Amino acid sequence: MTESQIKSQVKESVEAVRAQKPLAPSITNTVTINFVANAQLAVGGSAAMVYLPDEGEFVSEVGSAVYINAGTMFPVYEESLPRTAKRLFELKKNWVLDPVGIGIGSLRTKLLAGFKEFPPSIVRGNASEVIALAKLWGIELSTSSQGPKGVDTVDSVNDAENAAKALAKYINEKRGGLGGAVAVSGIEDLVTDGENVVYSKGGSHFMEKITGSGCSLGGVCAVYAGVASPFIAALTATQIYNLAGKRAEAKVNAPASFQVAFLDELYLASAEDVANNPFELK
Amino acid sequence: MTESQIKSQVKESVEAVRAQKPLAPSITNTVTINFVANAQLAVGGSAAMVYLPDEGEFVSEVGSAVYINAGTMFPVYEESLPRTAKRLFELKKNWVLDPVGIGIGSLRTKLLAGFKEFPPSIVRGNASEVIALAKLWGIELSTSSQGPKGVDTVDSVNDAENAAKALAKYINEKRGGLGGAVAVSGIEDLVTDGENVVYSKGGSHFMEKITGSGCSLGGVCAVYAGVASPFIAALTATQIYNLAGKRAEAKVNAPASFQVAFLDELYLASAEDVANNPFELK
Amino acid sequence: MTESQIKSQVKESVEAVRAQKPLAPSITNTVTINFVANAQLAVGGSAAMVYLPDEGEFVSEVGSAVYINAGTMFPVYEESLPRTAKRLFELKKNWVLDPVGIGIGSLRTKLLAGFKEFPPSIVRGNASEVIALAKLWGIELSTSSQGPKGVDTVDSVNDAENAAKALAKYINEKRGGLGGAVAVSGIEDLVTDGENVVYSKGGSHFMEKITGSGCSLGGVCAVYAGVASPFIAALTATQIYNLAGKRAEAKVNAPASFQVAFLDELYLASAEDVANNPFELK
Repeated sequence: MTESQIKSQVKESVEAVRAQKPLAPSITNTVTINFVANAQLAVGGSAAMVYLPDEGEFVSEVGSAVYINAGTMFPVYEESLPRTAKRLFELKKNWVLDPVGIGIGSLRTKLLAGFKEFPPSIVRGNASEVIALAKLWGIELSTSSQGPKGVDTVDSVNDAENAAKALAKYINEKRGGLGGAVAVSGIEDLVTDGENVVYSKGGSHFMEKITGSGCSLGGVCAVYAGVASPFIAALTATQIYNLAGKRAEAKVNAPASFQVAFLDELYLASAEDVANNPFELK
Repeated sequence: MTESQIKSQVKESVEAVRAQKPLAPSITNTVTINFVANAQLAVGGSAAMVYLPDEGEFVSEVGSAVYINAGTMFPVYEESLPRTAKRLFELKKNWVLDPVGIGIGSLRTKLLAGFKEFPPSIVRGNASEVIALAKLWGIELSTSSQGPKGVDTVDSVNDAENAAKALAKYINEKRGGLGGAVAVSGIEDLVTDGENVVYSKGGSHFMEKITGSGCSLGGVCAVYAGVASPFIAALTATQIYNLAGKRAEAKVNAPASFQVAFLDELYLASAEDVANNPFELK
Repeated sequence: MTESQIKSQVKESVEAVRAQKPLAPSITNTVTINFVANAQLAVGGSAAMVYLPDEGEFVSEVGSAVYINAGTMFPVYEESLPRTAKRLFELKKNWVLDPVGIGIGSLRTKLLAGFKEFPPSIVRGNASEVIALAKLWGIELSTSSQGPKGVDTVDSVNDAENAAKALAKYINEKRGGLGGAVAVSGIEDLVTDGENVVYSKGGSHFMEKITGSGCSLGGVCAVYAGVASPFIAALTATQIYNLAGKRAEAKVNAPASFQVAFLDELYLASAEDVANNPFELK
């Protein structure tokens, strides 16, 4: 893809979401669930959160795309997550996985490992999480990479480029060519479909001073995945986050004000500005 | 009731809550639970949230009124919701039901159907939810109405008037004449006790751009139901929401700022202004 | 300890947290979980929330200190809370207990009673909760005190002084001299290690108009407990809360704006100012 093609498709995604209000249901953690929903609404999508197995299947059917975030595990997830992922796979629907906390606890590990069979169309995580997921799925990487590190990132976005590309290729293949993408969050954010690699710029140092900037980015990826390919969806979400983050930071001097300003800027950002937010196509 | 009687009772409710700080415990969804609690505190009430069966019974005994919101179902709700509703019924305490997500999943359907035997004093929902609940309870309506539609409303408030009146009458009868009310949220909000029908005006288009404006309205209905009849409680909550929404909208240009301003205005609104917020008595 | 020693250690705690970003994982209620995490981040710590038994044990191992808040009980807590407390005890790690809702429900009572064997290093609660916990643990008090009162405080901070000192002494003894502290929240806040008693001043009347000011204080105690003794940790958290609360109140006229301003002030407060926030050493 060319830079100009990418910009044009990002712009269309922003506009399509505002026109269609796609429903992007979530099974997500209790810490940032409210932020996820409000971010989804701010960009123009619709939200619905569930926990139970048959509800996960139901929302997979009625939703445009789905978001699964492994943040706070409940016992019922043992049934809900596999059944939801399987149904999404059968329906060939886009869904986004945030493997947050990978490496913590046996149930989380088992469920994240199980997603290899019914993979998401988009993985959104920090560098350490993306590397850890590739390892958990036994995906061979051309460079050495590190193991699970818990909730905090220690690897850099660059370190995760190979893992991200390999994961995206695996997803695309397993989903029969329906596309796959991985978004790695960091100082600059990497988005790849296995072939194209984009580094998106902007954001704010306050992103790390509020909980849920990553989780809500995953939820917003799902909103755009209701109207666009996994790659364009992940990139559009990343671009609007970097734009809104930069704009919000310019207005405030502390994190709670930042969060309010950031959500406001998600709502106010024009499609044009999101498409033109600085990025680099490698 | 006359318009002037209504105004006078709404004013008294606002004042009574601020004087008495009634405790209105909730079993509510994890998405908007924080917003519910903060809205209850902002209008002058007290909040307490629980999930377990014996805790639902306990707070039914110590609370002034209770709020049950079916948003995010947990397995333990299979026991908690029926036992809490039954205890509230036996205690003849007011409680508010928000049947959000009606039509999603087997447990939710079973529990919402079961409330027919131990009905709430107030039902708060959008038009589609209110119509769906009336159908689920097999309440005969004079006009045709549509079935469950999930979390998003598609029917208009007008469409739900017959269902709302029928539900309110059923509730009042089943509760032995203790009163019943239904509040239907929309562009204008309908509140009825089965006889009187009021359309309350105001609010904001930002209400749909934040998650939980409906859920938190239900929680605030429960606060007022601790000091007033179901009808006056539902109307007072609706009036203060419409007033605060309108005032907040005038101060901001985006949804996250709106949410902060809205909660502030709930706290700042005078009893007089809440009573005088525009409404129409049909 | 002298006033000047206390100030110096409080200042060091504030600085150490900002330098080390200690991870303070939580098992906490769904109402205020987001506020807890954001407050922990605002003062410079790291957050991670879990529910499952093996995850509680895991985060006890990797965290600097842990926070357990009994606000909203889930069935899985029957296993998670005792196993986590036991592991923390064995690891001799600091952890903070907020016995919120003490007296509500059989599981909560059983689990809170069980913590007597594997006690936290810090108890954070209002006066009624602290008195109730001392009674539940059968700790003999020199003055009469009242029983469980649910979520709302009715006793004054002064009333709880004996209970707080007795609890702190018990904790220290049971933990083999590793220290113990109790923080009692009220108009003025009491912090004691069983010997020293400090009354910290400031705060805001808006603290009671938002949900989670107490819960998040507990989470912030855990952050400081990752770098300081239980007594200094509890006092540093209390001091920064009183400073930020007072500063935030001066800027706003309503509770939602207050919450945003309060979190901002937690982030902005200098170590010097936290140490010099008015307090009285009895």
